[in-house]
Amino acid sequence: MARMGLKVAVYGGSGYTGGELLRLLSGHPEVGGIEVSSRQHAGKVVGDVYPELAVRETFVEAGEIDGSSLDVAFVAYPHMESAGLVKELLAAGTRLVVDLSADFRLPDVAMYEEWYGPHPAPELLEEAHYGLPEVFGSPEGGRLVANPGCYPTAAILALAPVVKRIAVSSVSVNALSGVSGAGAKPTQKSHFVSANENVSPYGVSGGAPRHRHTPEIETMLRRFAPGTPNVTFVPHLLPISRGELETIYVDLPEGAELPGAGDVLGWFAEDYDGWAFVEGRPEVPQISHVVGTNRARLSVAVDERAGRLVLFSALDNLLKGASGAAVQNMNLALGYAETAGLEYLR
Amino acid sequence: MARMGLKVAVYGGSGYTGGELLRLLSGHPEVGGIEVSSRQHAGKVVGDVYPELAVRETFVEAGEIDGSSLDVAFVAYPHMESAGLVKELLAAGTRLVVDLSADFRLPDVAMYEEWYGPHPAPELLEEAHYGLPEVFGSPEGGRLVANPGCYPTAAILALAPVVKRIAVSSVSVNALSGVSGAGAKPTQKSHFVSANENVSPYGVSGGAPRHRHTPEIETMLRRFAPGTPNVTFVPHLLPISRGELETIYVDLPEGAELPGAGDVLGWFAEDYDGWAFVEGRPEVPQISHVVGTNRARLSVAVDERAGRLVLFSALDNLLKGASGAAVQNMNLALGYAETAGLEYLR
Amino acid sequence: MARMGLKVAVYGGSGYTGGELLRLLSGHPEVGGIEVSSRQHAGKVVGDVYPELAVRETFVEAGEIDGSSLDVAFVAYPHMESAGLVKELLAAGTRLVVDLSADFRLPDVAMYEEWYGPHPAPELLEEAHYGLPEVFGSPEGGRLVANPGCYPTAAILALAPVVKRIAVSSVSVNALSGVSGAGAKPTQKSHFVSANENVSPYGVSGGAPRHRHTPEIETMLRRFAPGTPNVTFVPHLLPISRGELETIYVDLPEGAELPGAGDVLGWFAEDYDGWAFVEGRPEVPQISHVVGTNRARLSVAVDERAGRLVLFSALDNLLKGASGAAVQNMNLALGYAETAGLEYLR
Amino acid sequence: MARMGLKVAVYGGSGYTGGELLRLLSGHPEVGGIEVSSRQHAGKVVGDVYPELAVRETFVEAGEIDGSSLDVAFVAYPHMESAGLVKELLAAGTRLVVDLSADFRLPDVAMYEEWYGPHPAPELLEEAHYGLPEVFGSPEGGRLVANPGCYPTAAILALAPVVKRIAVSSVSVNALSGVSGAGAKPTQKSHFVSANENVSPYGVSGGAPRHRHTPEIETMLRRFAPGTPNVTFVPHLLPISRGELETIYVDLPEGAELPGAGDVLGWFAEDYDGWAFVEGRPEVPQISHVVGTNRARLSVAVDERAGRLVLFSALDNLLKGASGAAVQNMNLALGYAETAGLEYLR
Repeated sequence: MARMGLKVAVYGGSGYTGGELLRLLSGHPEVGGIEVSSRQHAGKVVGDVYPELAVRETFVEAGEIDGSSLDVAFVAYPHMESAGLVKELLAAGTRLVVDLSADFRLPDVAMYEEWYGPHPAPELLEEAHYGLPEVFGSPEGGRLVANPGCYPTAAILALAPVVKRIAVSSVSVNALSGVSGAGAKPTQKSHFVSANENVSPYGVSGGAPRHRHTPEIETMLRRFAPGTPNVTFVPHLLPISRGELETIYVDLPEGAELPGAGDVLGWFAEDYDGWAFVEGRPEVPQISHVVGTNRARLSVAVDERAGRLVLFSALDNLLKGASGAAVQNMNLALGYAETAGLEYLR
Repeated sequence: MARMGLKVAVYGGSGYTGGELLRLLSGHPEVGGIEVSSRQHAGKVVGDVYPELAVRETFVEAGEIDGSSLDVAFVAYPHMESAGLVKELLAAGTRLVVDLSADFRLPDVAMYEEWYGPHPAPELLEEAHYGLPEVFGSPEGGRLVANPGCYPTAAILALAPVVKRIAVSSVSVNALSGVSGAGAKPTQKSHFVSANENVSPYGVSGGAPRHRHTPEIETMLRRFAPGTPNVTFVPHLLPISRGELETIYVDLPEGAELPGAGDVLGWFAEDYDGWAFVEGRPEVPQISHVVGTNRARLSVAVDERAGRLVLFSALDNLLKGASGAAVQNMNLALGYAETAGLEYLR
Repeated sequence: MARMGLKVAVYGGSGYTGGELLRLLSGHPEVGGIEVSSRQHAGKVVGDVYPELAVRETFVEAGEIDGSSLDVAFVAYPHMESAGLVKELLAAGTRLVVDLSADFRLPDVAMYEEWYGPHPAPELLEEAHYGLPEVFGSPEGGRLVANPGCYPTAAILALAPVVKRIAVSSVSVNALSGVSGAGAKPTQKSHFVSANENVSPYGVSGGAPRHRHTPEIETMLRRFAPGTPNVTFVPHLLPISRGELETIYVDLPEGAELPGAGDVLGWFAEDYDGWAFVEGRPEVPQISHVVGTNRARLSVAVDERAGRLVLFSALDNLLKGASGAAVQNMNLALGYAETAGLEYLR
Repeated sequence: MARMGLKVAVYGGSGYTGGELLRLLSGHPEVGGIEVSSRQHAGKVVGDVYPELAVRETFVEAGEIDGSSLDVAFVAYPHMESAGLVKELLAAGTRLVVDLSADFRLPDVAMYEEWYGPHPAPELLEEAHYGLPEVFGSPEGGRLVANPGCYPTAAILALAPVVKRIAVSSVSVNALSGVSGAGAKPTQKSHFVSANENVSPYGVSGGAPRHRHTPEIETMLRRFAPGTPNVTFVPHLLPISRGELETIYVDLPEGAELPGAGDVLGWFAEDYDGWAFVEGRPEVPQISHVVGTNRARLSVAVDERAGRLVLFSALDNLLKGASGAAVQNMNLALGYAETAGLEYLR
């Protein structure tokens, strides 16, 4: 049944971020019609394939969707596959494309190629708006939003207010994530018996930490704090379905004065004033405080004995870390309330 | 049925470490008789109270056990309650006391009083052997073993080989632990619905990290590396029953050369050669690699981009982090094979 | 900030059903103001006590709420404590009381007293509407709704269409529930380490199944199928936070003809046509299909080899099994859409 | 290092039952040498592929093992692949083969072909001993043991003492199992995010229960109680790694007198007297009581209101339900103590 409202499409609707988008868009007050593609499930009703989603739309092949008729396209493809479709959609006249892959997150082609590979549409990099509006502003009026990585979202929200104001000499991000962050494809690592009652650090290869979210964190922080040092980033897989917590160890240059916890909470309050989903609080955030919501919760502990700040940042990797942020970006880009379709989650 | 062999007692047998001790001692080839005290369960058969333990002994009141007849007493009391009993047992003539509380871990009375409170038996501090034999040697022949904290065990095993050899300027220990580490007493925090699908950082109070294992880590490392800086230690509660993983971020002084991953693995090999339960390996350890065993597994990643070492250390908090170590200490103190009663776990 | 709309109160807001009610009512389009009582937390902001709830109301003592001003009161008190408050509220003039306790579920005083104890307000029993509208009709216009037990909801939804149409000779309900069903109070049973990696049958005492939901299931089915035999009901605690699944084994009298699976699905379709939240489907329901929603999902398998029906019924114990149903009952009683405030869950 | 003792081989060492066998055999006092085959991992050290196993043996191709030299071969192949290898081994002169597949469990070829397919070695069916010694006696002196299915083990242990003594008219087995029961191969169903916070009934196809363990349960019970009715068997996948619980609903013929709970416990005591691993107890068993052990725990509740017995049976699906039973069968077949290598698990 077509309601009046935005015509949207979800490309790659069978993964976790695609499914979450379908759930959010189905309940979104401004959305009138949803199309959804899936190579694997084309021809089947979404709610039959995923009985947990009460969604009556039918999966189609991507090619069956008319990009020129879309108000918004959400692209939930793997990196390096996404950029080509994004380019086509913009060429066809889709009003807004929100890309959930990594393809338009790094503004620099060389950096992209070092960490991912040849970029399929470098000419669009400049136009892409990095969709972390609380730090980089609203994408209002833009055509292309690069939806941030989940880990960078948590890290940048916590670190940006700090590195903007004081020099830091060392940053180590210890990240914990639920298994949905590793994708819907069954692997030995995501097997219940492997993941359950376990924690496994990952993103280490050849004896060195090397996760692709590292340059994203660094580059984005350097936009307003060029002296930000290289960041050590070590993610760990946890036996939970969703949710993400980062504990970030920050040293200051020799002799610099440590701010108090109240100072840092004040910076959070100042920077995120007026934004609905990001909040610094005195209590340390837990994953349960944010799961099922589009919220990010921040806090800080100041270790005067050791001369170091510890920042905490928690969010739901499928919402504020992916699909929730994508809808928030759509809202802002098109001039709706930031919270439309997102307020009633927990 | 009394077998020939060691006469042992477990004081405080109804907590997790006490229960694990009963399990281990029941299968120990040198143990001939076990007594077990529990205020709460006195008069009941262990296996009736804890159907998961096939243990036929009956809980008694602590006062009913004759300390003078014991070869070994394991004291699993809370800190500040333990020291008094330890003193009595030694006075009564118990051949060996292994104390699982914190009472004899910190060699310095003033430090103990800063972090815990008035020490009930300071005159025994000097005699106590810190029971991490792979680092501090065998307690062979001693009367009193201070069984280390679970977090310090993991941290010191990973850090000792490093700080012995190179100067470090900054140490942040990110620790993850299963809920058994928080004790058997039902609390809001340990309620299934609170802990499940959650991660909660703790040990932060008044806006600062302040967990009692911090000075234990620092003091023990300073025995051979007096310049070790104060350590930031942030533990997190995970939705698993048991197991512990520490990810340790280590900065070197300005201008110092980073060792390679192979170097650090070499140091592990050198220091832990001949010890059965501690092993450095190239692959990053996961909690599942050690749960149910007395093993600690170590690894390292070298972040050349950021100029920093990352150490990994995993163990089972109830085994190598508590009761397994206690049995290992008993074995060594009395001259048995280090692995007696401990080899057949996984 | 007071919006226009219904004035509602939640009595006993600090348990799981109370918290879930707050979450639902906060997002309900017809609700204008919420008051919430908690002896334990009076004076504190809900969202400070429960950081997972973005609720700004302050807990008060029950006595501080003016019952005469309320459109709707939800009473989430323990049984035998609830009836007294319900009586007071109705006397004070509260327009609608939805009682989430067991106090008004059993229509027969003697039966209540056999399974619970002396009834505090038996004179109200007759007026109470058993709030399972899909089976017993809308409470429209009523003053008092007895919100059904979670297990009876699942059992009756699956069994009612069957016992209405065919005679059955034996009914065994195997029920599985998440730990939230056992309440928010920390106990040994709800301790993470006890519940995790475990399943424990309960509701057995003195060698016999004896759970209070048994007579509720029997009595309600007998309203339209007086010959329904006594039911064996065995609940099991599962290591999940929420969700409930019942697998129900139904024998037919000697010689009776087994219906086909399609027949039973047809009965479900017929009986639940027009109701938003209850649906029979060919695929066997899983807890994940309903968690986080107000849905109940039913299915059936017909074992011709053994001559027996197996019914399946899944719901979220805190939503369709408690607070979601309570809001649905409010909607119906006051003439709103059945789904108001409930559609946008998953 | 070769010890003196039995020469054993594990064929199919990379699945869960194979891994568990390796763990058990490594610690078995009578085992002197272990060979282990895995097509997938041939050439690699077991402990490198599975860091949780401290096993130094190297995986080889099955063809590299000399069957004529083996005292015992454990075959952990899929059904219909196993029988061929079993035949070869026996022909080559292997002293004892313990087959963990279903190939020799059903004594009747036609029944095997109905539920599985063409039997690769029907001539060996008669020789195979069904390895549930507590019910069917010791395999002492035999050459071929058919290790029972995990579900049948739990069901038969609980039901045999009942059906031996009284007539029953209806049997419904509600079975719950951890995810390891579904095998090590990554699938959508075993993905952490699918299994976690979920319960899914399975073994239903075309609207009817149809799990292959059903005829195994029926056939084995009919050996001594030919009137045993067909059994309804419905397994459910639970979010735990290992462990199994069956709740079994048993009706008696019209007019028959219900035994008391004490009677049934007496039957358990009588039948399992002298066997180390099977025990009936008054308290209802939980999965945590048996996980990590070779024990099965039984109990009973008598529902006089409904006229029905409820039996409970719990075991660890990888131990008493598979690899532990296999080792127990080896012990008995070769004349060792039943508990050798199995006593020290929990």
